[in-house]
Parts: sequence; structure tokens; C-alpha cells
Amino acid sequence: MRQSRLFTRTKKTAPKDEVSKNAELLIRAGFVHKEMAGVYDYLPLGLRTLNKIIGIIREEMNGLGAEELLMSSLQRPDVWKATDRWDSEKVDVWFKTTLQSGSELGLALTHEDPLTDLMRSFVSSYRDLPFSVYQFQTKFRNEMRAKSGIMRGREFIMKDLYSFARTEAELDAFYEEAALAYERIFARVGLGEETYKTFASGGIFSKYSHEFQTLCEAGEDIIYVDEEKRIAINEEVFTDEVLQELGLDKEKLVQKKAVEVGNIFKLGTRFSEPLSLTYKDEQGKDQMVIMGSYGIGPGRVMGAIVETHADDNGLVWPEAVAPFRVHLLSLGADEKATEIYEALEKAGIEVLYDDREASAGEKFADADLLGIPYRVVIGKRSQESGHAEVKKRTESAAQEVALESLVSYFQS
Amino acid sequence: MRQSRLFTRTKKTAPKDEVSKNAELLIRAGFVHKEMAGVYDYLPLGLRTLNKIIGIIREEMNGLGAEELLMSSLQRPDVWKATDRWDSEKVDVWFKTTLQSGSELGLALTHEDPLTDLMRSFVSSYRDLPFSVYQFQTKFRNEMRAKSGIMRGREFIMKDLYSFARTEAELDAFYEEAALAYERIFARVGLGEETYKTFASGGIFSKYSHEFQTLCEAGEDIIYVDEEKRIAINEEVFTDEVLQELGLDKEKLVQKKAVEVGNIFKLGTRFSEPLSLTYKDEQGKDQMVIMGSYGIGPGRVMGAIVETHADDNGLVWPEAVAPFRVHLLSLGADEKATEIYEALEKAGIEVLYDDREASAGEKFADADLLGIPYRVVIGKRSQESGHAEVKKRTESAAQEVALESLVSYFQS
Repeated sequence: MRQSRLFTRTKKTAPKDEVSKNAELLIRAGFVHKEMAGVYDYLPLGLRTLNKIIGIIREEMNGLGAEELLMSSLQRPDVWKATDRWDSEKVDVWFKTTLQSGSELGLALTHEDPLTDLMRSFVSSYRDLPFSVYQFQTKFRNEMRAKSGIMRGREFIMKDLYSFARTEAELDAFYEEAALAYERIFARVGLGEETYKTFASGGIFSKYSHEFQTLCEAGEDIIYVDEEKRIAINEEVFTDEVLQELGLDKEKLVQKKAVEVGNIFKLGTRFSEPLSLTYKDEQGKDQMVIMGSYGIGPGRVMGAIVETHADDNGLVWPEAVAPFRVHLLSLGADEKATEIYEALEKAGIEVLYDDREASAGEKFADADLLGIPYRVVIGKRSQESGHAEVKKRTESAAQEVALESLVSYFQS
Repeated sequence: MRQSRLFTRTKKTAPKDEVSKNAELLIRAGFVHKEMAGVYDYLPLGLRTLNKIIGIIREEMNGLGAEELLMSSLQRPDVWKATDRWDSEKVDVWFKTTLQSGSELGLALTHEDPLTDLMRSFVSSYRDLPFSVYQFQTKFRNEMRAKSGIMRGREFIMKDLYSFARTEAELDAFYEEAALAYERIFARVGLGEETYKTFASGGIFSKYSHEFQTLCEAGEDIIYVDEEKRIAINEEVFTDEVLQELGLDKEKLVQKKAVEVGNIFKLGTRFSEPLSLTYKDEQGKDQMVIMGSYGIGPGRVMGAIVETHADDNGLVWPEAVAPFRVHLLSLGADEKATEIYEALEKAGIEVLYDDREASAGEKFADADLLGIPYRVVIGKRSQESGHAEVKKRTESAAQEVALESLVSYFQS
């Protein structure tokens, strides 16, 4: 894409009320626009990045055999009353609204309740199970404080996956598969090293749930990390009893700030019981469906990548999630640069081409701020030398690459 | 995909309160689930269809050079007050909600107002114009009546495109391009013949706007069609003066029911003026940005396709939007059918494989209800004859195709 055609431009400053590093950088780079605390618009570069993250998650969900659907935000109270989650005393982040008829509706903050209700239309026999479904869907949460940029939204896209099984063993097997898929997701988006599978409190059905926590100074959670064993435990289960049970040595645990980028939870019959989601077993006897739920916020992942990867000069995107792979800068050599741009595009390499009338200093600063993995500079010198300067965003040294080898350089 | 793995199944009946044909069929076929009047969940087959429609629209938007973004649903009142659209007396389909702090918020029913406000961050010079942006985003409208299934949602995905120009001539040029893109979209999704570009009332800025109206008994609009000239006019501008101006003969106009599947509108300075979206021209003088807006509801398009194409036996999908291209039925010949299924999948042909243990009658009835364009039957006879029975959903006669030619039959 030609940068001159992009309506966004970089800014020297972010709004004064913006206190989070991820939002500040994303706003300055033109990736997002702030509507209010906890509510951001995704602009073209930001949406490209978000969609890369969503694409990776979707691949892993499909790999689990889960089926994609898309549920509504508007929620009827009755299902949530059945599970005792409608009352704002019980769930304190509801946004509610009203139909013209006067009936109250909720805006979905998650979907266990309506989805369990929906499945009553489709599950009746043991032959219908097990299966799993997922969606990328906009959640609304009426957070009292929303100061972590796109890491804690009042409105945000969530990937929520739900599993439906006949037995605990079936649930456990899927849960382990989902945990592995989550590890692959965080590795693929570039958060593998910083992200710990973390023991957290479970529910009635299972002693623990698991969070995926990314170490990060801006995180709102405290976890205790065993770096050798690569596991962690959440503050809420940090007791001697739990440490003993998990075979962890208190001395080896390091206290860290972290952001929860994913969580997986064995729901058991928490929702199938109040909503009567049952199946007939092989003996024709009614049994409760056993459920699990598994969440990742792609926006929060994007925010965590910014927080953990950015440097003093701006954003730094891992290749798999970058809005473009190559940032091509023309410094007074538009003809040659355009030729290279067209060749790279033709080869299917995603290029942002800085064809703007701007100074070299401005173009270099913007390239750093935008954080695209490879910067390729075509200057007047290139025409004589026949070389372009290629520099990784994560490295300070550049290298010379022959113009005619550029396409194959990025294809390999 | 193997049908045995699909959690949905067909139903004999839809909910009793469902009065629309599109929703009734889509619910019976397992494409959507009704949460309440005007609020539907998209289940796997429905989401695939919706995404096909979205994909076609996105291609055409990109073809216009428009940039994709994604704005928030939660809306601050101030921008809407500036344009005099916050008051429920002025705009009567608002859903409103409240932050914990007590501040009132709106749920976006469209995005002219916040988008115009956003662009103040990016537009300052004549060099920044013209450009256009679009999104696929969930709108909320508190409709008093919502009886048209997915054709009139209280919550629905809308593709909204907005153009920003310096002059009326620039707006006009883009408007004409957008109109052509819309015609291509309706042709590609299979509504070309039934859809008329329809003159409707404009605003202060332009005498007319245009709607794209699909002839359909379930439509809520009345239009007057000149079938020869392939144009129509909306009831609201059906006056002698307008007829004369457009050179239409009252005698030749036929009154029809129709559903508005798209609309395009020259906004002029309706929003840039109250929200102060200006640019400096070449003389350094402030000028108002001239805007246009262009909407299509992919869900409404899907509903209109159902209404116009379905027959007594069920849904009928045009190939470009069908959830799968081929519905492969195994009638007691699982081994051979599985072999064919794998070969088709490998060739990149989208197949729904009915590998369920079900009677032939059930499989045929379900295939008709689901409406996938090609039905391929592999029965016991196929093993002897070496042929499969291939039937188009729109035709009654089947033809025999040699098993070894099936892949190339669908590749051509």
C-alpha cells in the first residue's frame, strides 16, 4: 500500500488523558483512535494488525475442530436470571439498555449463558457430543476504571471458545488440547517467552483454572513465576497448600506483574444445570452436559505485544502480526522505489511504501514509530550502487542488498 | 466439512412467533438462531454465507480504494448533540446505556457523527483529500417492530462507507463509482435482476439520494418501477414533477413491494459543518469537507436472497454466497463417498459431506432445505456404475457424472 493513500498520519503526542503506553504509541502511530476511556476505534494499520492476530487464533481454533459462529450482543434477561448472573450485585460490569416496549436488555459481557440455552435446540443424545464452538465477538464491560489502553476495554473483541462434553474425561482431554493451542497462539504472535501458563482459582467443578499471563510492567495482575519450570501461580491461589500440591518451591518463585492474555476454565455443569442442557446417554437416561470455556482477547494480545516489544523509538511488531512485512522508503528515488514496490507487491510481499513528499528524518522517525519488521531504503545512492539498505526494526545495523535480489530476499 | 461434525441440525418447524419467511427457513436449516425479535445468532452455515457476502462487498470496497477501519459501538453524546441527533425525539431508534459514573452513552446506529469527529485528527490540508473509508460493524437500532427476520435487525452488521472530498465534483465522481460498485455487488451475490437503483429523497445538499431496492413480497417499501429503463422511484418522491424531471412515464411505472438492500447519499456539509471538519485550500483558506455515505447490510442482503430465491423445499443459494458449493450425500456407500470427499477437498472445492447415519429421504430433504448449489449422490449403484448423480438445486433433472471426472467437473 502507498503511504500517501493512508488517511492516518503519525502524531507527536497522544491525548493528554491517555495514561497507558500501548494506547499512547498506537494513537501516535495512527493504529487506533480513542473515543473515550476503554473505547478505541481500530484504524487501517491497527485493524490489519488485529486481523493478523485474529487469523492466527482462528487457525488454531479450527485446528481443534471447533466450529465458528457469531452470537448477538443484545441479551434477554431470562437466561441470565436462570444462572443468577443478571443482578448487578452479582455481576458488576453489565451495560444494560431498554427496548421501546420498556423491557430491559443486557449487552453481552460473555456468552456461556445464552450459548448453553441455544444448545438446548441441538443437543439431545450422546451421539451429539462432544463438540466445541467459538466466535470473535464484541463484548461490553462496564469497567469502573479503564486505564490500560486496549488491554482493558469497555468494548472489545473477544475470542470465546466453549466445549460441550459427556464426561469429565472428555472435558479434560479437550482442555489439554485447548491449553496446547493457546501456547501455540502466544508463541506465534510473539509472546511465547513472556507468557506463563498460570494456576488460578477454579470453581465448584475443578480446583484450578488456568490463565495465560504475559509478564509486563503495565499488567494489572501479580503472579509468582517459577522460571525454570515455566509455570506460575496467580496471587489468589498463592498458599503453602497449593505450592506443596504443585511441587513448587516458595524460594524459587519470583513475584512479577503480568497481564492475563487468555484463560481456560472447566465449567462442568455450572451452566448446563440451571439451563437444563442435558443429553440422553446410551441407556436413555438424562445426563448433564459438561462444559468448558476458553477466552482470548485479540486486542489485549495486541496491547501486550506493544507493551513488551516497543522501544524508545516506537512500536516493534513481530513478523506474524505486523500490518505489513516491509516498510519501503523512497528518499528522492521515486522511480526506482516504485519499481521495487511493484515487484514486491507482485510477489505477494506485504509492503507499506512511503512515497510521501517528506524529509528523510521524518520518514525514518515514522518507520521507527510504525514498527514494521523490515525497513528498506531506496535513496539516490541506490541508483548508482544498485543496492538498497535493509534494516530490521529490532536491529541497529543495516545491510546492503542488491536491488535485483530484494524480492528473493523477502521470499526466503 | 463432514456434516456429522456440524452441531446444528435441521428442524421441522421454526419458533411460533417467527413470522418472516427468511428467518423461518434459516432457523429450520440451522443457519441462524433467534434470540428475540430482530436479534439473531449466526450459526456455522449462516456465518459462512454471511462471510461470503461480506467478502464480495469488501473486494468491491477495496476496488474503490477505500480503507477499512472498525469503529466502536459505544458513543459519547457530545458529537451527536453537535449534529442534533442525540435527542430521541429526533432519532427514535437509539439504544442508550449508562457508565458506572452515571454518564449516558449511545449504541451506534450509524457512524457519520463520530467518524467526522475522528477525521478532524487527520484532515487539515487539501493534500489530505479526497479519500474514503469503510467498515463492517455491528449497529444497534431500537426498532419498534422487527418482523422481517434478518432483513430488519435490532442488531446487525452493516457495511458503511464514507467519502471525504474537496469539491462537489469530487463527491459526484466518487458517488458514481460507488453506485457502480453497488450494482456489481448485487449482481455478484445473485440479486442483480431483482435489484433496482431507485430515486429517493435527498437532503439539503442534493435533491435525490439513491436506494438499491430488491423486488420482494416481504419488502417493507413501495417503489415504482420502469422495467424497460431499469430504474425505479421511491414512494416519497413519486410526484408528477419528479416523473417529468426524470423523463419517466407514469403509465409505464409498476408499483412493487421491495426491500432496501443498499443506499447512497450525498451528505455534503451536513456533518462537517456542525463538527468543524475543514481543510485549508491551496490559498490557505478554510473550506468545509464534502461528504457522502454509502450503506449495505450484509444480513439484509442474505435475507433478501432467501426471500427471492427459496422455493417450497427450502433455501436456494447462488453459488457466490453458498456456504458450500457441493453437498455430497453418501447413501450407504461411505467408503467411495469418503474417497470422493477427500479428493474434492484436496482440489479446494468447498464440500459439505453428509456422512450421517440417516435415511435417503432425510438426506434429500435436508439437502433441499440447506440449498447448497450442487447435490452429488454416491449410492450403492455408484460403485457398480462408476457414476455419481449430480443435481443442481435450481433444476429438477439430475445427470450422471463419472466418479473419476467429479473433481474436474467442479473445477471447470
